[in-house]
Amino acid sequence: MICIDLNCDMGESFGIYRLGYDEEAMPFITSANVACGFHASDPMTMKKTVQLAKKYGVAIGAHPSYPDLIGFGRRIMDISVEEIKADMLYQIGALWSFCHSEGVRMQHVKVHGALYNVAAKDITVATAIAETIKSIDSGLFMVCLSNSAMVDAAKATGTKYVEEIFADRAYTSHGLLVARSQEGAVIHDPDKVAERALRMVRDKIIVAIDGTEFTVKAQTICVHCDTPGAVKMVRSIRQRLEQENISFQTFDR
Amino acid sequence: MICIDLNCDMGESFGIYRLGYDEEAMPFITSANVACGFHASDPMTMKKTVQLAKKYGVAIGAHPSYPDLIGFGRRIMDISVEEIKADMLYQIGALWSFCHSEGVRMQHVKVHGALYNVAAKDITVATAIAETIKSIDSGLFMVCLSNSAMVDAAKATGTKYVEEIFADRAYTSHGLLVARSQEGAVIHDPDKVAERALRMVRDKIIVAIDGTEFTVKAQTICVHCDTPGAVKMVRSIRQRLEQENISFQTFDR
Amino acid sequence: MICIDLNCDMGESFGIYRLGYDEEAMPFITSANVACGFHASDPMTMKKTVQLAKKYGVAIGAHPSYPDLIGFGRRIMDISVEEIKADMLYQIGALWSFCHSEGVRMQHVKVHGALYNVAAKDITVATAIAETIKSIDSGLFMVCLSNSAMVDAAKATGTKYVEEIFADRAYTSHGLLVARSQEGAVIHDPDKVAERALRMVRDKIIVAIDGTEFTVKAQTICVHCDTPGAVKMVRSIRQRLEQENISFQTFDR
Amino acid sequence: MICIDLNCDMGESFGIYRLGYDEEAMPFITSANVACGFHASDPMTMKKTVQLAKKYGVAIGAHPSYPDLIGFGRRIMDISVEEIKADMLYQIGALWSFCHSEGVRMQHVKVHGALYNVAAKDITVATAIAETIKSIDSGLFMVCLSNSAMVDAAKATGTKYVEEIFADRAYTSHGLLVARSQEGAVIHDPDKVAERALRMVRDKIIVAIDGTEFTVKAQTICVHCDTPGAVKMVRSIRQRLEQENISFQTFDR
Repeated sequence: MICIDLNCDMGESFGIYRLGYDEEAMPFITSANVACGFHASDPMTMKKTVQLAKKYGVAIGAHPSYPDLIGFGRRIMDISVEEIKADMLYQIGALWSFCHSEGVRMQHVKVHGALYNVAAKDITVATAIAETIKSIDSGLFMVCLSNSAMVDAAKATGTKYVEEIFADRAYTSHGLLVARSQEGAVIHDPDKVAERALRMVRDKIIVAIDGTEFTVKAQTICVHCDTPGAVKMVRSIRQRLEQENISFQTFDR
Repeated sequence: MICIDLNCDMGESFGIYRLGYDEEAMPFITSANVACGFHASDPMTMKKTVQLAKKYGVAIGAHPSYPDLIGFGRRIMDISVEEIKADMLYQIGALWSFCHSEGVRMQHVKVHGALYNVAAKDITVATAIAETIKSIDSGLFMVCLSNSAMVDAAKATGTKYVEEIFADRAYTSHGLLVARSQEGAVIHDPDKVAERALRMVRDKIIVAIDGTEFTVKAQTICVHCDTPGAVKMVRSIRQRLEQENISFQTFDR
Repeated sequence: MICIDLNCDMGESFGIYRLGYDEEAMPFITSANVACGFHASDPMTMKKTVQLAKKYGVAIGAHPSYPDLIGFGRRIMDISVEEIKADMLYQIGALWSFCHSEGVRMQHVKVHGALYNVAAKDITVATAIAETIKSIDSGLFMVCLSNSAMVDAAKATGTKYVEEIFADRAYTSHGLLVARSQEGAVIHDPDKVAERALRMVRDKIIVAIDGTEFTVKAQTICVHCDTPGAVKMVRSIRQRLEQENISFQTFDR
Repeated sequence: MICIDLNCDMGESFGIYRLGYDEEAMPFITSANVACGFHASDPMTMKKTVQLAKKYGVAIGAHPSYPDLIGFGRRIMDISVEEIKADMLYQIGALWSFCHSEGVRMQHVKVHGALYNVAAKDITVATAIAETIKSIDSGLFMVCLSNSAMVDAAKATGTKYVEEIFADRAYTSHGLLVARSQEGAVIHDPDKVAERALRMVRDKIIVAIDGTEFTVKAQTICVHCDTPGAVKMVRSIRQRLEQENISFQTFDR
């Protein structure tokens, strides 16, 4: 039987501000990437998010970012590799504390936003990320964009990792994500997205934006839960794949 | 033989800003209270401070605060007990990460500034602090102002603790610190301070500002290292007590 | 003819986070209290909010706060009067810049949240606020809780001011707001709220929570626009009062 | 008689942290670039800095930055031109408030750190800066690196400007600053620096690091005052040039 993990960014509220549909989406996912206060979240939000994940048996990962709350971590910052490492240690530790006090384990680390995009291409940054994760706990998984520099870095450093794919994003024929600024970069039709997910997971095939096909090996699909429509899409992906006897399980099983 | 611990606030620099004489003072103390980013410090500073403490075999503790960088954690904030707990978990976890990646253990937690002053009098806040510390690791010590509500809270919750005294601060006849705003609250003469420290540690006696004496039981003396003069004072306390065969050791021995 | 101003907190979004129904409510109010970055908002949000107010001819005021983004300025901070003054100058100036570059004038200043509550009772804080406002521009109005220390401070310092009332909040027989934690503190029925507003404005009478009546003199009603229901309430207040030939105009006319 | 302005970054302390020798240097300079809270400073520091400049008759300018307190504004951030404009308006307005309440005028704007370096090369960013300055007050000067894209932007937008030179920095033969990472980029000998300043101001000649000479037109020299040695250098530059009958005056005379 084929198994796949479904990961989603969670806990991105901040103070009085609500973001995302964590309560609605948590029952349908298997792994949660929990914001750590640098692009979103605050200590109370982190606590509630860890408790919510625990309630549904969802595996928890840290979701560290550049220090840029106003920009939601989406603006590239020219910060040194040493600073990236220290910023990551800080954020992962902060989340660890909430996991520990709730008696749950941290499963993985997935870097956020601009840092994710940089790490997908820049092997130096990707390596710094991999080393940091491994230095905290050799059992922690690094969530890597499939086929990217992150995978190379995880392999080279001996860091545990999984590769992830995006069901609702268009790919170039080189296996990279089409930039959001380009038309067609994001796919909105829930049925289409569910079919794409099915082909990716069952057949290990992605159809690129130019119609060419390439194979892909992934242990987790990333979904977004920041709109009511997105939550619906998560459910539709899950239903469609379960019809085909694909099982949803966290990758750390 | 009498043993005593010498604790000092460390790692209170921030970004480009330097504060304190960490390099100069570290060789003379036995426990370091390391700032965690809410009143001072940043990830790079935390990393360097943990490395410096490790180099000199100094025991490490977290030094969490209200979230108030501009006010250096010295302004009371009317935040809920739940928020205090979450803020503490966040900060302690962040420091834990640096300890863990350097292969050293965290020994204690000592809250900072206005939060310390509130916890000395408010049993609800003190209890929240004690519970949080115990929930992270039952081996962690809570550093408590001697004779204060913190001690009561630590006892009631079964949290490990030590009592601390201040050699360079005047005490009221009730065993509390004389407020800094009052004349004579801080003692500046290094010889006088060393003699006071000696009486506190060897004879377990504090002479209050009105001349009365009371007994005290403490496992650690707090010293400040934020001026060159302060570092000198640390050395003079240490010398004077070692002449009397008092040994300096961390309390977690 | 009776005239009244309708003021509302605006521009309280932050970065990616949306708060409030500014677009929907702006057409119905006459004065906007614009957040300045200390409890909410950021430079881009401030710019858009000033542009939106300008579009509907709504008068603009600064809405400064304690520096507490995580707590949305709702937590009392024990900061000095000198710090309050400097924090206010900073925030008012920041908003002035956006007004100036859009070619609109700043009409008033209304302090936010916990600072508002403190200033309502503490004449020292209220006086510091009044002095700061006057020092920037003697034409600026200070928005004061009716019957509070703010009014006394404005009078004593010769600062222009208006008194404000809350249509959806219960009052004590002493003319103060019933604390939100008490039952019945907030009135949710739009018709009741509209009737209360009418009595306050037309008859200058407030019925306290214990049934007693007292007179009130106000130039502005405060309404909230942070839920779709609240926006509806604003419209219903406006309609009800216009039926009675009460005219809505900014106080700086 | 030749006149020149001497500008220096001022008010870069933050909370409890002290940076720079403002008290010592202020008597020797003619223009102060005052930090606005995004890379350094806070409201109390801004107030004191404006008061100090006023005391010595030093002209005041805003010194806005990327929003990066931990990185002291020295890390390039990939933020949009619209965000740069809004961030600048916010910071300039904040400082304007302190100038206004002290009864002094703002003379100029000089962007800080990484934003300065980007604007020196990127005409789009430089133009956004020039437009923002002009939109606030057409009498405000933009301080531009001599021969850089900033000068082109000021000219094209009709923004008042001055060109600045650095007496203690080496130049390439193309008239740009040698990167700090290169050997010889910063000149430390006070006599050499004073002689360079003299040639720059009296003869309008800069000798590049490769020995070639080029002409330069500048209305202001930038000096640093962040170490006791730097303050000494300022005094030595001033003395040397005054011996040659060069007069120090702010450019807005």
